[in-house]
Amino acid sequence: MPDNAQQFASDNYSGICPEAWEAMAEANQGHQRAYGDDEWTARAADHFRSLFETDCDVFFAFNGTAANSLALSALCQSYHSVICSETAHVETDECGAPEFFSNGSKLLTARTEQGKLTPASIREIALKRKDIHFPKPRVVTLTQATEVGTVYRPEEIQAISRTCDELGLNLHMDGARFSNACAFLGCTPAELTWKAGVDVLCFGGTKNGMAVGEAILFFNRDLAEDFDYRCKQAGQLASKMRYLSAPWVGILQDDAWLRYANHANHCAQLLAKLVEDVPGVSLMFPVEANGVFLQMSEPAIAALTARGWRFYTFIGAGGARFMCSWDTDEARVRQLAADIRQVMS
Amino acid sequence: MPDNAQQFASDNYSGICPEAWEAMAEANQGHQRAYGDDEWTARAADHFRSLFETDCDVFFAFNGTAANSLALSALCQSYHSVICSETAHVETDECGAPEFFSNGSKLLTARTEQGKLTPASIREIALKRKDIHFPKPRVVTLTQATEVGTVYRPEEIQAISRTCDELGLNLHMDGARFSNACAFLGCTPAELTWKAGVDVLCFGGTKNGMAVGEAILFFNRDLAEDFDYRCKQAGQLASKMRYLSAPWVGILQDDAWLRYANHANHCAQLLAKLVEDVPGVSLMFPVEANGVFLQMSEPAIAALTARGWRFYTFIGAGGARFMCSWDTDEARVRQLAADIRQVMS
Amino acid sequence: MPDNAQQFASDNYSGICPEAWEAMAEANQGHQRAYGDDEWTARAADHFRSLFETDCDVFFAFNGTAANSLALSALCQSYHSVICSETAHVETDECGAPEFFSNGSKLLTARTEQGKLTPASIREIALKRKDIHFPKPRVVTLTQATEVGTVYRPEEIQAISRTCDELGLNLHMDGARFSNACAFLGCTPAELTWKAGVDVLCFGGTKNGMAVGEAILFFNRDLAEDFDYRCKQAGQLASKMRYLSAPWVGILQDDAWLRYANHANHCAQLLAKLVEDVPGVSLMFPVEANGVFLQMSEPAIAALTARGWRFYTFIGAGGARFMCSWDTDEARVRQLAADIRQVMS
Amino acid sequence: MPDNAQQFASDNYSGICPEAWEAMAEANQGHQRAYGDDEWTARAADHFRSLFETDCDVFFAFNGTAANSLALSALCQSYHSVICSETAHVETDECGAPEFFSNGSKLLTARTEQGKLTPASIREIALKRKDIHFPKPRVVTLTQATEVGTVYRPEEIQAISRTCDELGLNLHMDGARFSNACAFLGCTPAELTWKAGVDVLCFGGTKNGMAVGEAILFFNRDLAEDFDYRCKQAGQLASKMRYLSAPWVGILQDDAWLRYANHANHCAQLLAKLVEDVPGVSLMFPVEANGVFLQMSEPAIAALTARGWRFYTFIGAGGARFMCSWDTDEARVRQLAADIRQVMS
Repeated sequence: MPDNAQQFASDNYSGICPEAWEAMAEANQGHQRAYGDDEWTARAADHFRSLFETDCDVFFAFNGTAANSLALSALCQSYHSVICSETAHVETDECGAPEFFSNGSKLLTARTEQGKLTPASIREIALKRKDIHFPKPRVVTLTQATEVGTVYRPEEIQAISRTCDELGLNLHMDGARFSNACAFLGCTPAELTWKAGVDVLCFGGTKNGMAVGEAILFFNRDLAEDFDYRCKQAGQLASKMRYLSAPWVGILQDDAWLRYANHANHCAQLLAKLVEDVPGVSLMFPVEANGVFLQMSEPAIAALTARGWRFYTFIGAGGARFMCSWDTDEARVRQLAADIRQVMS
Repeated sequence: MPDNAQQFASDNYSGICPEAWEAMAEANQGHQRAYGDDEWTARAADHFRSLFETDCDVFFAFNGTAANSLALSALCQSYHSVICSETAHVETDECGAPEFFSNGSKLLTARTEQGKLTPASIREIALKRKDIHFPKPRVVTLTQATEVGTVYRPEEIQAISRTCDELGLNLHMDGARFSNACAFLGCTPAELTWKAGVDVLCFGGTKNGMAVGEAILFFNRDLAEDFDYRCKQAGQLASKMRYLSAPWVGILQDDAWLRYANHANHCAQLLAKLVEDVPGVSLMFPVEANGVFLQMSEPAIAALTARGWRFYTFIGAGGARFMCSWDTDEARVRQLAADIRQVMS
Repeated sequence: MPDNAQQFASDNYSGICPEAWEAMAEANQGHQRAYGDDEWTARAADHFRSLFETDCDVFFAFNGTAANSLALSALCQSYHSVICSETAHVETDECGAPEFFSNGSKLLTARTEQGKLTPASIREIALKRKDIHFPKPRVVTLTQATEVGTVYRPEEIQAISRTCDELGLNLHMDGARFSNACAFLGCTPAELTWKAGVDVLCFGGTKNGMAVGEAILFFNRDLAEDFDYRCKQAGQLASKMRYLSAPWVGILQDDAWLRYANHANHCAQLLAKLVEDVPGVSLMFPVEANGVFLQMSEPAIAALTARGWRFYTFIGAGGARFMCSWDTDEARVRQLAADIRQVMS
Repeated sequence: MPDNAQQFASDNYSGICPEAWEAMAEANQGHQRAYGDDEWTARAADHFRSLFETDCDVFFAFNGTAANSLALSALCQSYHSVICSETAHVETDECGAPEFFSNGSKLLTARTEQGKLTPASIREIALKRKDIHFPKPRVVTLTQATEVGTVYRPEEIQAISRTCDELGLNLHMDGARFSNACAFLGCTPAELTWKAGVDVLCFGGTKNGMAVGEAILFFNRDLAEDFDYRCKQAGQLASKMRYLSAPWVGILQDDAWLRYANHANHCAQLLAKLVEDVPGVSLMFPVEANGVFLQMSEPAIAALTARGWRFYTFIGAGGARFMCSWDTDEARVRQLAADIRQVMS
């Protein structure tokens, strides 16, 4: 079971969903204007504006690292700092990309509760240093859903936004799994972003059925000034842009993005439910999005691995992360749950 | 004829060729390891090593701007300079990307003959300033084929390489249209690169039938130290890498890359031949790769545009660039030639 | 005459003038608050505001390269470009510092008339490219006095400023020899800067009798937002700031800055006058500030050098630059003139 | 007592010592070649090579922030990381300068014992992440003496150096108070640097009686390649270099550097001794260099401040830092001790 066994390793191990693929196939006709001056890109941008119920500025970048880094560098200067969770992808898994794109902005990690920043933890970091010898806080970045599978409620985001306003901070959202957050809460995208005070959203497509092409949405359009130049200079302007934008048309036009997110979330819930009574297994975090974080025994983890299952264990001793995806197979979820039960017995 | 008329605007207006598409389709099966640890990426790298007859280090970037900029920044520090042609893409069309990625390396433009640098023009720039108040020359970048459609011969590259060795300069090749150069000369890729002294090649796929994903080949492997980290930090590491690498397998495995380049070159030759006797029309540069640069009258250019043809005119008053592509239609070439004849009469 | 013979090499070969020295000595008393929170720095800033008749923001940097680069990077982003003269110090003698501090802003050189940019030459460069593939022009930098010893008149600056307003460009002035320009024109500092539309001035002290410490004056104070952080991060905040600011108090409080500039200008005029009738010698540029650029014969230049005189010859074959300084000795000027006459005969 | 009361705030509140001043006065004669091609700079470099008993490469930067940042950026690339103490100046008080100069290198803070890194704490951080998604550790930076006044012994540095060799890390020493460390240990400068495996030392003069001008000494000369260009581009090459180098001649030629460091250390020891029996006062760190860190009561701190004393309290509630300097007055130390006794009673 070489391939299927990787189904829980990461949602970016998955392939391209049919809707995205078909849109790409349809886009693959003849010659089209390059660098985003094509019809598909215009259509995708319109879909975003319609979905978010606002006239936002829309850009595309090749991957999430670039999307986040470009957005953050538009929100601050090199001598500013960015407040993030200690588990934020920008801090732990982007190899210093935010620092590189911004020419040196420092990331300041704040305490979290179940992976989520709070007004209090932001305030604590933002007010710790007010002198010129330390980079001035200028941005808060939230990850929605978080890296530990939890989801910010609209009122939590609103409260953070109020804190940002008070402290002169811009608010960025890393939405690599934004779809899963929407699906879990049943909120509209608008409710989770600009209506709650988010300035810029990086909306991830890769983890929800696309090959490349994250969308960057500026709700605060002043912050988007010359952002097209920024993307170009940073090597993030696709010449054949239609292949980045068409897939978005594909997954946005009939709500495939939400359907798939619901499916992935459902699989995560199923896995959690199937193992909830297994002795020695406990949830490390509430299952809200598409990830399940289980506290198990180290030998059990080794035994699971020996059976061919692939999953990440970066969370600490005995911790295992199982990610579900748009194409996760329920039968495989049940098999995995059964194996977890066995290795723990 | 909205779509077809764009066939001569740019080779990046073209779509994905069948071989690349089919490889992507084949790669789009189930889950695969991310970030290049997949089979397709390994296969693509092996194809490159086989094609170039050497054990080079292979990386992939999303587009040519990034590929060039990453490679150049690996070859010099911020206080160094890069010698390039005054028409080089890195100088004229990458929005300062080389300067951004390198944190400030200066591009120094040298004189060219028919778009090509020479040992003499390189030497002139390299030796102009030897003091600490000006960035120290450290790299020469050649574009093969050049932006004006000419092609460096192996012996020309060798001569430049000797000059580089003498002056302590690394040699980079921007191969956005490297395929077309190989096709024109009938040389092996090895003869045009490492055998002639090239340290690093950025081999373009986008302009020859791919969607995204330029290859960066280090023949001088010492220069590739930690280059994987560089790509990652700069937002150029694809998580679903297989969609960048599989198309390369598709076009390399049965020499589609060369076939298509030959076709594009052939169309360019055809166009040139068809208009060579048109009064008032002359070639601005010899037609070697897939571009035809015609000196015409300004009214004729306007008339062509009025007939719906799309092409670039950045070369100066009365100059028109017609690019042929992997999918250019010979019938359209003949139509275009006929229209040129008409508007000039 | 090893030392005196260097008097015409550069105005930065000169030492510290008595007024600056005495102020430093006076400042060298006991302990004082660091990083600019001292009395001397406050006094210096007030002197500038009084001298310029406006409530500008004042900062200090260690040298001119840093002052210019910091100011320019505050006026544009990495994907913007800076229009400058082809002989501008930022282009020719700062080793890519503007590109480094700004993380990649490109310098675009414009044509000059007698070393001076014009509205037409600025417009030509600013409007040449309006597409996303080339860095967007955002700043014009003037050098006052220019590197070839000429001086912008207030109305020339005003005209340039109007062009900047029209094109959305900020206006920066590199005033390494601003004192000499004021002295030549008999204008007030205000007339040559904010009253003529200059946003930011880098006012040089080093070439007019100081050891270190250029002043950066923001007349457009919006552009100075968080500039103190920028200086600190870039390694340009002196801990013992009083030693940078006190010398300014010394040379500003009794107009030594203007007196010395007048003297240097006078010596330049004297030299020019003394050699004006020497056969074969001609002025390359009108003598307005403290530099004299003579066209001579190559053998004469060699002969002068053989007699021990030191001067720069970067201006082209047969060109020689003689710089006068705050402490230039009139007797030496006459000796030099006599030697020029001899070697040309 | 406005001025004297600041004597314990920071060693950079102090002025210029007589030896440095006199050397500057002596250097202030006539014209001299700029940018370090003068005699004073050559003499200073020779003094360093003699003092350190090795043929090291010597450079000067304006301040410690720049010296450290330049050195670190020469030891790693943007995608590398630098291991430092959590209290290191580069981390806490340079406003992101190391990140800026290096274009994004991440600082990783390691646990310390009494302010000192250990092989174990370095190893822990260096080996924590070995994947491409996190910046690769490449440099260790030690502060000698540390920010909490402790001093690395030669054998401690040697042990760290061995760890560095094993892990492929370069070793940098921030020697803002290197003089005080030498004075405390009675070691030669060589024993504390290259003989113990240090690659690069930033030797601070500002905190020991100079105005500006830290020295950067490369013992590993391969790492100094083109470092002169790096300094120039980063705005750290003084034109009138003699004013940075002459003071070094002044304090090195008759060992004033060591005498003053001994004096400052002695004052710190005296203060510690005078308050050691004060009830409620305890040392937070052993007094080794020129700083005394006292744990007191918050009201006592307020009372001391009310009496006019100035000192830093960034170390946590009830913690107070008293820094001694080259010119600290013993009588003032006794007064301060007496006041501490009073406010604590």
